[in-house]
Amino acid sequence: MSTERPLLFALQGSEHYAVRIAQRLGCQLAVHEERDYEDGEHKCRPLESVNGREVVVFHSLYGDGRQSANDKLCRLLFFCAALKDAGARHVQVVTPYLCYGRKDRRTQPQDPTITRYLAAMIEACGVDRLIALEVHNPAAFNNAFRIPAWNVQCTELFAQHFARLVGDDEVVSVSPDSGGAKRAEQFRQALELQLGRSVGSALMEKHRDQATLTGTLLAGKVQGKTAIIFDDLISTGETLKHAGLACQKAGAVRLFAAATHGLFTAGSRLFDRPLFAHIAISDSVPPLRLPAECVTQHLHILDSTTLVAALLAENGAFDRA
Amino acid sequence: MSTERPLLFALQGSEHYAVRIAQRLGCQLAVHEERDYEDGEHKCRPLESVNGREVVVFHSLYGDGRQSANDKLCRLLFFCAALKDAGARHVQVVTPYLCYGRKDRRTQPQDPTITRYLAAMIEACGVDRLIALEVHNPAAFNNAFRIPAWNVQCTELFAQHFARLVGDDEVVSVSPDSGGAKRAEQFRQALELQLGRSVGSALMEKHRDQATLTGTLLAGKVQGKTAIIFDDLISTGETLKHAGLACQKAGAVRLFAAATHGLFTAGSRLFDRPLFAHIAISDSVPPLRLPAECVTQHLHILDSTTLVAALLAENGAFDRA
Amino acid sequence: MSTERPLLFALQGSEHYAVRIAQRLGCQLAVHEERDYEDGEHKCRPLESVNGREVVVFHSLYGDGRQSANDKLCRLLFFCAALKDAGARHVQVVTPYLCYGRKDRRTQPQDPTITRYLAAMIEACGVDRLIALEVHNPAAFNNAFRIPAWNVQCTELFAQHFARLVGDDEVVSVSPDSGGAKRAEQFRQALELQLGRSVGSALMEKHRDQATLTGTLLAGKVQGKTAIIFDDLISTGETLKHAGLACQKAGAVRLFAAATHGLFTAGSRLFDRPLFAHIAISDSVPPLRLPAECVTQHLHILDSTTLVAALLAENGAFDRA
Amino acid sequence: MSTERPLLFALQGSEHYAVRIAQRLGCQLAVHEERDYEDGEHKCRPLESVNGREVVVFHSLYGDGRQSANDKLCRLLFFCAALKDAGARHVQVVTPYLCYGRKDRRTQPQDPTITRYLAAMIEACGVDRLIALEVHNPAAFNNAFRIPAWNVQCTELFAQHFARLVGDDEVVSVSPDSGGAKRAEQFRQALELQLGRSVGSALMEKHRDQATLTGTLLAGKVQGKTAIIFDDLISTGETLKHAGLACQKAGAVRLFAAATHGLFTAGSRLFDRPLFAHIAISDSVPPLRLPAECVTQHLHILDSTTLVAALLAENGAFDRA
Amino acid sequence: MSTERPLLFALQGSEHYAVRIAQRLGCQLAVHEERDYEDGEHKCRPLESVNGREVVVFHSLYGDGRQSANDKLCRLLFFCAALKDAGARHVQVVTPYLCYGRKDRRTQPQDPTITRYLAAMIEACGVDRLIALEVHNPAAFNNAFRIPAWNVQCTELFAQHFARLVGDDEVVSVSPDSGGAKRAEQFRQALELQLGRSVGSALMEKHRDQATLTGTLLAGKVQGKTAIIFDDLISTGETLKHAGLACQKAGAVRLFAAATHGLFTAGSRLFDRPLFAHIAISDSVPPLRLPAECVTQHLHILDSTTLVAALLAENGAFDRA
Amino acid sequence: MSTERPLLFALQGSEHYAVRIAQRLGCQLAVHEERDYEDGEHKCRPLESVNGREVVVFHSLYGDGRQSANDKLCRLLFFCAALKDAGARHVQVVTPYLCYGRKDRRTQPQDPTITRYLAAMIEACGVDRLIALEVHNPAAFNNAFRIPAWNVQCTELFAQHFARLVGDDEVVSVSPDSGGAKRAEQFRQALELQLGRSVGSALMEKHRDQATLTGTLLAGKVQGKTAIIFDDLISTGETLKHAGLACQKAGAVRLFAAATHGLFTAGSRLFDRPLFAHIAISDSVPPLRLPAECVTQHLHILDSTTLVAALLAENGAFDRA
Repeated sequence: MSTERPLLFALQGSEHYAVRIAQRLGCQLAVHEERDYEDGEHKCRPLESVNGREVVVFHSLYGDGRQSANDKLCRLLFFCAALKDAGARHVQVVTPYLCYGRKDRRTQPQDPTITRYLAAMIEACGVDRLIALEVHNPAAFNNAFRIPAWNVQCTELFAQHFARLVGDDEVVSVSPDSGGAKRAEQFRQALELQLGRSVGSALMEKHRDQATLTGTLLAGKVQGKTAIIFDDLISTGETLKHAGLACQKAGAVRLFAAATHGLFTAGSRLFDRPLFAHIAISDSVPPLRLPAECVTQHLHILDSTTLVAALLAENGAFDRA
Repeated sequence: MSTERPLLFALQGSEHYAVRIAQRLGCQLAVHEERDYEDGEHKCRPLESVNGREVVVFHSLYGDGRQSANDKLCRLLFFCAALKDAGARHVQVVTPYLCYGRKDRRTQPQDPTITRYLAAMIEACGVDRLIALEVHNPAAFNNAFRIPAWNVQCTELFAQHFARLVGDDEVVSVSPDSGGAKRAEQFRQALELQLGRSVGSALMEKHRDQATLTGTLLAGKVQGKTAIIFDDLISTGETLKHAGLACQKAGAVRLFAAATHGLFTAGSRLFDRPLFAHIAISDSVPPLRLPAECVTQHLHILDSTTLVAALLAENGAFDRA
Repeated sequence: MSTERPLLFALQGSEHYAVRIAQRLGCQLAVHEERDYEDGEHKCRPLESVNGREVVVFHSLYGDGRQSANDKLCRLLFFCAALKDAGARHVQVVTPYLCYGRKDRRTQPQDPTITRYLAAMIEACGVDRLIALEVHNPAAFNNAFRIPAWNVQCTELFAQHFARLVGDDEVVSVSPDSGGAKRAEQFRQALELQLGRSVGSALMEKHRDQATLTGTLLAGKVQGKTAIIFDDLISTGETLKHAGLACQKAGAVRLFAAATHGLFTAGSRLFDRPLFAHIAISDSVPPLRLPAECVTQHLHILDSTTLVAALLAENGAFDRA
Repeated sequence: MSTERPLLFALQGSEHYAVRIAQRLGCQLAVHEERDYEDGEHKCRPLESVNGREVVVFHSLYGDGRQSANDKLCRLLFFCAALKDAGARHVQVVTPYLCYGRKDRRTQPQDPTITRYLAAMIEACGVDRLIALEVHNPAAFNNAFRIPAWNVQCTELFAQHFARLVGDDEVVSVSPDSGGAKRAEQFRQALELQLGRSVGSALMEKHRDQATLTGTLLAGKVQGKTAIIFDDLISTGETLKHAGLACQKAGAVRLFAAATHGLFTAGSRLFDRPLFAHIAISDSVPPLRLPAECVTQHLHILDSTTLVAALLAENGAFDRA
Repeated sequence: MSTERPLLFALQGSEHYAVRIAQRLGCQLAVHEERDYEDGEHKCRPLESVNGREVVVFHSLYGDGRQSANDKLCRLLFFCAALKDAGARHVQVVTPYLCYGRKDRRTQPQDPTITRYLAAMIEACGVDRLIALEVHNPAAFNNAFRIPAWNVQCTELFAQHFARLVGDDEVVSVSPDSGGAKRAEQFRQALELQLGRSVGSALMEKHRDQATLTGTLLAGKVQGKTAIIFDDLISTGETLKHAGLACQKAGAVRLFAAATHGLFTAGSRLFDRPLFAHIAISDSVPPLRLPAECVTQHLHILDSTTLVAALLAENGAFDRA
Repeated sequence: MSTERPLLFALQGSEHYAVRIAQRLGCQLAVHEERDYEDGEHKCRPLESVNGREVVVFHSLYGDGRQSANDKLCRLLFFCAALKDAGARHVQVVTPYLCYGRKDRRTQPQDPTITRYLAAMIEACGVDRLIALEVHNPAAFNNAFRIPAWNVQCTELFAQHFARLVGDDEVVSVSPDSGGAKRAEQFRQALELQLGRSVGSALMEKHRDQATLTGTLLAGKVQGKTAIIFDDLISTGETLKHAGLACQKAGAVRLFAAATHGLFTAGSRLFDRPLFAHIAISDSVPPLRLPAECVTQHLHILDSTTLVAALLAENGAFDRA
């Protein structure tokens, strides 16, 4: 058993994220080979000996133009299994964005619970520990995995960011739906701590009449305040837009939005008529579906690698000579 | 492999529930022995041969004066393992009340996720399938178990009950906190279906100022309406009471409450100054901490055994000769 | 436990194959839902109740323009796990084409052995049995799976096909490399049986000089004979082309080729200068990368569904009322 | 992976035992939280970071007035699982008294074998090693666990104790039933070694006539000797009493008794008419059902923590800086 | 899934035993191939299709001149795994003699507990249930296996046999050591039931002085009685001989011995000076190390196949058409 | 957890091999006990404490006059399980000869795949890693094991040996059948590297006519060359003999043979009419079936322990103080 420092690997597309973590931990990414075959299959293998070593593998599991989320998932799984075969002592996976987080419970009869299947497959490939950034449903995630699986929440990161911006404004933390209420409340508390003064809370909820969506319920005071809508991810951006409009209508004087994962699956549509002073996201998913000017004008991308690096270093594994 | 009908066993304290299911399925409870030892340990064994048989075991896992929830859990686990040892082909467990449903996620560092540990232990004892009534957090439950584990929701049951009561009142379904919003919305939809007309929705949320609870947020209209507060369980009853008072203050003309599991851990305190026309609960937990007059005056206990019997019969196992 | 006949499901893209099997077994495909999300994720669920049922799922795991092999694999895995969750008693998978068959052993240090990882993932998702058509390396396949996993060889199918074609020609079965020698020998024996007379054998092997490929070794007599090159799959077609040219050069008077899986990853390149009277493939992979005229002029597509249907029916599961 | 010394946790009720072990190992108990809920459920979590650490958890699994054996078992299991979730590298459990030791084999049809179910549950919760004091049936225990599970026998401890007491008496080691014969023989040998002279052996066995217990068989010479009845545990004390009376009747001049676990489930009944000069027990179970004067007059409580501490230190884990 | 009757296979050397069971169950043994290779390895495979079938495999795991116990064990394991691979739905193993029953607990530091390793290996090869005849240590056996594993005790068989022989004699059941006391007591009770009158009990125990074996302790009355020494197995026969001599010396007027498994590893040495009117054994191990005259003069071999056949038929599996 | 160097154990018959490895690693073999019982069973246990230690166990699994391959396999399995029970942290097995390598795939219906069963049993006994020398079918081996399992190829060893012998001869590497083509090609490349010049390749294949073996196909030029027939093992030697004769007939001027494992199950028959200048084998199996003069005249035994020692030392485990 080696007492050397862990080896860090980043699969294709996740190098930029991983290299910043490596720098924070004072090391370099280890080298591996990813080979694509003409039939769409692939082969990954480490080029440095992993026998007896602790290993960390980085891969953010969003689909992009070249690889689907499934493609990235399979690469990650096969690579981790290969590391174990090659004698790696402990394989830790970091997924800045963990896919299938919203397929987390049965809502219709015979529905899949993909979060759990993912966990079973990850375990079947010999992964010893998983670190994910801001998962969609922490309760689902906490129960799905039987290996240690840790959810790194980005609340602090966003609280620090907005504390610097809001000046003396009255601020309210807004959850865009009831499912995110706990998350928005945690953000509210973190922001209170940063600001040293009271922050309000508000909650949106869809309003239905005999199964038709008829409007949006807004609980809490936003009138005359700076409203920060807080969510885990932005997909098409519709949820955010509705929440923004409701806050605007209710008299909010300034609007911000924050979400760890910026997927922007509808492209720049959210920015056609800008509602928000800006939207803060993390670096878990690069804004690949947005034009450059959208990114520079409307987004603030916060660096989440400090959080992950701190967690990786927590048990002293990187203190070795 | 036997083609006989499944055998049904009920552990001590759950016979009343199970016997009604047996009747609906046209059979009798099978006989077993439960022996207590002077050191507090016990031994359960089936007295009918289970070799090659499908078996269903009933046990509601609430603590009472004689046995804690842990005591009941251990009895259930050891009995199921004994059934498997004795050759039972398929062991299905029905827990009208599944314990530890609220220890479902990490809220503080290094918190346990007991729902999942429960699942692992149940699986380790050879249980093949679990049926639970109205679990606290369906997402946690769906992910915790790797055997088929089914959550029987009681929404229909309560919707039918209240549809008969509300006459032409304007009705609103109220969730006492954001965590229960999806559940109250399902109830609202079921009630709309029963009534054939629109039912409103409202949502409570605790309001905090710099970490102190300062009040309750109520979103949605209750003024002049019959408000039905809908939750999964009643523990001390404090949540229900706060929600009831808030609805009263907001002008609700009549108040009901409904919850599948009536634990009433604070005894009759909730009924000192009755807020609700009545509270509807299911028969998953007998109202053992309440005086008889409380039960007769304030509670309506709905029979959930139709739901469970229907699910058990679904695959035709009870159609055999 | 149901005594009904098994339910048959086919995932998107594999319906044509499955429906023919269903017809042979005298039943219809069961209905399911496949829903795609804007972020590239998906959800599949059965629309018929699978509680207590035996289920067969069909999916051919080749990548096409819409879904990569990984996409199909993940769909298959998640769907099987959902079937198990929903109470299916036995889930059997049929993969006419099983992906990653050529990533079957370590050839370089720290290489993955993906066949085995696939097996572990398939098992982790609750699959009870796997049937694959003509796997690349039967020894790898036989060892990778710990559930029953059966390789359906198409030797008979091709032997019957060619027996009808070769008339009184002297015939030789040619393996295009040493790895396929056992497969070509099985074909030779099957053809002998069909023809009732002797069939020759020949074997190609790459010839190297100090690591450079310098030519092709051909062992066995092909002069004046009808040569049938027999392999498991056609990828780019280069291997087949070299073998065909070598046979031509060695005096073969007529050339055929046969392979169970026609991937044709290099498109129609193999047919630019047609070497073969025709190429026989099975219906495991539709010739989606070939223009229609290639298919009609150069290919004979043999129906493999009789073989699979026979195997599924072997244990009497489809004889039930 | 940490190279720090293991963390030691003791669950409620086992602190006294654990703290003495910690002292012997030169460290302090780590801090954790145990929170009880109004419905009888609980939550335990470590308050010191266990990420990457080796951990030892102490809990003696006897029922007392506040918690049943099942309650203690569940606390232990859930706490260990939480440690693993929180990243503990190796979790070792020490149970001075392991419950359900006497439910170790089938004696009636379809009997449970709870020792084994316990093992399966302990393993399901991620425990890596178990140390138990003087288990009831070593063969059952050795076979039940698939993790390393070690039985610390207290023979030496009792041999040293009695060697100091017996002076020049002729001594005989008496097993109160045939099941304990091996244990009493080990004690006899240990005592011989301590005394440097011969020690006799005797064996009691129940005598039945057509299924009615009619008396006690005593094999071996006790006449004129100091008899030490040696057993693993004292439950009601009836077995010990019968053995004592038989020895008295057979002419033993002085009587002692020794048992590792003093449960005394019948309270002080055994001491109504004191038979024994004294009874030596270990500190695995505090004499909570006995009045203080019983303890001071009739019991000698031997300290077993030296044995456990030595075993924990054996592999050098506590030698680290 | 087949509803046909189970298939019965017997590995080489166990055909005689199995064929009698098959006759009792009204069926024939299924056919298989056992092939030996020149390097001492072998290959077994079923020659009848086992797809979807329940299967019972018989093998008695004693070593003989041609195959060691390990050889038989490996054949059994590999054959069972092959049955599962070939699609057998349920594989049940019957071992009239289960090897390594006496390596059941740690008696020296770092001792193996082979009973448990055997269980783990049997489970790893896919065996679903095990039936063994009269295992050495039921507690060890009950705990070792996590699949249903049943110990068929032969007490009844021997009680019936001796009830016919003893006439009006006073009879005593003698255990040759303390480890067998429970077994001899069960025999005593069964014999009482058969005879309808009282049967005495006696117990031998080795007597040691400072670690040297100095004699044998005999508890209980044998004077003037017919003594039946009852044990699970006869290895060299030394234990039996010492017990017999002790009974003789203590005045027994007639001596019998009974043991389920007659290994006679020291050949006919036990019969050099015949002590016993006869020795009754079962047919679990053929008396292959004894000359024919020993068998005819000194042994009575009881047929245990009724017991096993009854157990196999218990769940109705052989009642099918 | 210990940071001491690994302990090395060698089971009976494998000491000579292991001791040479120990010397290369600068340590001594650890001591254990192997005890044989009169019934053919055995017991092995370590005599040095393994608690917390890394352990390597050596055993070459060929059958010899005293123990069959199954006997050795069972000893190895039980010993490894005992090491784990006794607290060993990591158990690594080295099998210079791994048995059942040729039972690696289904060639007839319902055939066993013993390689995989072996893997499952080895894993069930707690082995953490396996190192085997030159396995028969690397693809089967790579897929069979789910623990890290490494195949040490001896190609280099033989290339070095023959490079010293062949002088300026033209050399050709000959595979005796198509299954060994990859292995012979690897040897050819290694020899080219050693010699710095071109080495030819040739391939034998059995030739059949309507299922009767009618001759041998030889592809490649051997005329006038030194031919080295390269295989993984020599069983009866028939394959080698046929290949040698074919090369001789085809004009080879000098013949050598090389195979890692020399079983020589037909004794010295291969040497009755010596074909080969000599045969090079490794030390994985001692030539126990050959008379001494055969060994000295016809065999060169190469030392493979350097290869294994290098692999064991790779992760630095033997660099500790």
